[in-house]
Amino acid sequence: MGNPVLVEVMRGALVESTHQGSVAVIDAEGRSVLALGDVARPVFPRSAVKALQALVLFEAGAADRYGLTQEELALACASHGGEPGHVATATRMLERAGLDAGALECGAHWPIHQPSAQALARGGGAASALHNNCSGKHAGFVCAACAMGVDHHGYVRPEHPVQRAVKATIESLTGAGLAEDRCAVDGCSVPTWAIPLADLALAFARFGTGRALAPERAKAAARLRAACAAHPYLVAGTGRFCTVVMEHFGARVFVKTGAEGVFCAALPEQGLGIAIKCDDGATRAAEVMMAAMTARYLPLGAADGGLIERLLGPVLRNWNGREVGRLQPAAALGY
Amino acid sequence: MGNPVLVEVMRGALVESTHQGSVAVIDAEGRSVLALGDVARPVFPRSAVKALQALVLFEAGAADRYGLTQEELALACASHGGEPGHVATATRMLERAGLDAGALECGAHWPIHQPSAQALARGGGAASALHNNCSGKHAGFVCAACAMGVDHHGYVRPEHPVQRAVKATIESLTGAGLAEDRCAVDGCSVPTWAIPLADLALAFARFGTGRALAPERAKAAARLRAACAAHPYLVAGTGRFCTVVMEHFGARVFVKTGAEGVFCAALPEQGLGIAIKCDDGATRAAEVMMAAMTARYLPLGAADGGLIERLLGPVLRNWNGREVGRLQPAAALGY
Repeated sequence: MGNPVLVEVMRGALVESTHQGSVAVIDAEGRSVLALGDVARPVFPRSAVKALQALVLFEAGAADRYGLTQEELALACASHGGEPGHVATATRMLERAGLDAGALECGAHWPIHQPSAQALARGGGAASALHNNCSGKHAGFVCAACAMGVDHHGYVRPEHPVQRAVKATIESLTGAGLAEDRCAVDGCSVPTWAIPLADLALAFARFGTGRALAPERAKAAARLRAACAAHPYLVAGTGRFCTVVMEHFGARVFVKTGAEGVFCAALPEQGLGIAIKCDDGATRAAEVMMAAMTARYLPLGAADGGLIERLLGPVLRNWNGREVGRLQPAAALGY
Repeated sequence: MGNPVLVEVMRGALVESTHQGSVAVIDAEGRSVLALGDVARPVFPRSAVKALQALVLFEAGAADRYGLTQEELALACASHGGEPGHVATATRMLERAGLDAGALECGAHWPIHQPSAQALARGGGAASALHNNCSGKHAGFVCAACAMGVDHHGYVRPEHPVQRAVKATIESLTGAGLAEDRCAVDGCSVPTWAIPLADLALAFARFGTGRALAPERAKAAARLRAACAAHPYLVAGTGRFCTVVMEHFGARVFVKTGAEGVFCAALPEQGLGIAIKCDDGATRAAEVMMAAMTARYLPLGAADGGLIERLLGPVLRNWNGREVGRLQPAAALGY
């Protein structure tokens, strides 16, 4: 596909592996600020657009009807680690609609957070849909269906009113036409539509600023951003990139990872949206790309240097804790 | 780096991710049979050369002195899943030298095989060096040190007699000069030297045929290949690529994975060695590349078609077990 090498994986003094990718940075008026590689090719945004999907909580009236807290709104935008706090929050969301884990259609998997998975096994537990990294989003979809007064069963299907509403919202924010031949199935069984990176970046510029959005939608976006800024732990989990970045920068950065090396972000103060795809699907490289974009477009202070340096050059340690290499931005990343 | 796209990851009808790489296929006389991408660039072979490292068991006299069984020789060549059978075999190897897990310098990690990790946690256990996927290789190094009559402590260091012997063997088989600036540290703390793919493929053509090797070394290589063919489960584990391929093809294929998307193989009947590097380090793609090379150079019968088809196009299923995509060879892979 000919996208540039954006991240190098060093072992000792040699490049061991390389990651290519594309990056779009756009303002809320749709002006391109940066385009690395092919930003017109449609990519599946996967979980990177959970915050856009979560707008349905407001548009279906679920957020107010069920009095969803900031914690619960943050979890609706999350790809979480299945830690106890995540599971408890998802459980409460479902309780608000009078339901339980049986209503979730995301499938079960063990917690991504390994200490939580081990503790679950030690306690004789098993993987459930609540541990699924998408359980907050799905609990939100269940609440949305109930608030809309429709049967929540089958809420993952493209023809369900919840997914039709989600699709319309994403089409509106991105400006991309989501034809059927762009549709596939996500890891958690909801539809995912392939969208050009440039359009995804535009959607996040709008999400981050409210510009070009109807007043109610702009208000909903601001509430979701505030919720994630207040509870970044619930958006990902212990030690995870999205959590670490939003814990540090607060409301100045909204950032969200997706499977297969996708990342989206909004820098509200700069009025910018960012969308990234690592060609080969590697999260480790997409994180370095996003760290570089954050460092490039966010004015940094002395207190930010340590974090950015750590995120730009993650150290690789072996099983004895010895440093054996590191990732680093390649020249084409422009950092 | 400009290597061709060799594997595509499909989601629905669209390409979601791509993997580039290089492939060298060479005969034991050093004649190139196939070169895709850059096969001259040095790559760290990581665990893909464990069978070459295991030759030290014979050259140090450990295999005969301790009466290492075929199971133990297979485990010395393994990147295993930490399943109970792997742990028990590593334990027995150490006992032959009068030692235990305390002698291992590979570091501890939880079993790669998830059901084994969960069972370990359920039983109140913890990760140990025996669960490390390299524990068989390390138990072998400990046996080699003891058979050589040298202190086994520090056997992972480049200057230790065991590693000096391993280095000399790999230099001889590959014909590559292993200068200091080609050396880095592997995940299990032993040295790993960067070697051009073409030279790695040559080494495996020689390992698979015995050609250009001293008679004793050729015999040792044959014993290691026979051990892996007899016990492929011990070389990797339940459901793993190397195990599945060698269980099916027996002694007709020796194949071994390494971290960061490296794969090496020998096809003894065809007199060929194969070496593969996926640029971005993805094992999922390196496996498809190796499946394609196996299918291309091994005469296949009717009984082989199902396995090859499954390995060439691994299905991606989501958490509800629904097929959402698959990997496939790209055109440049020539399959």
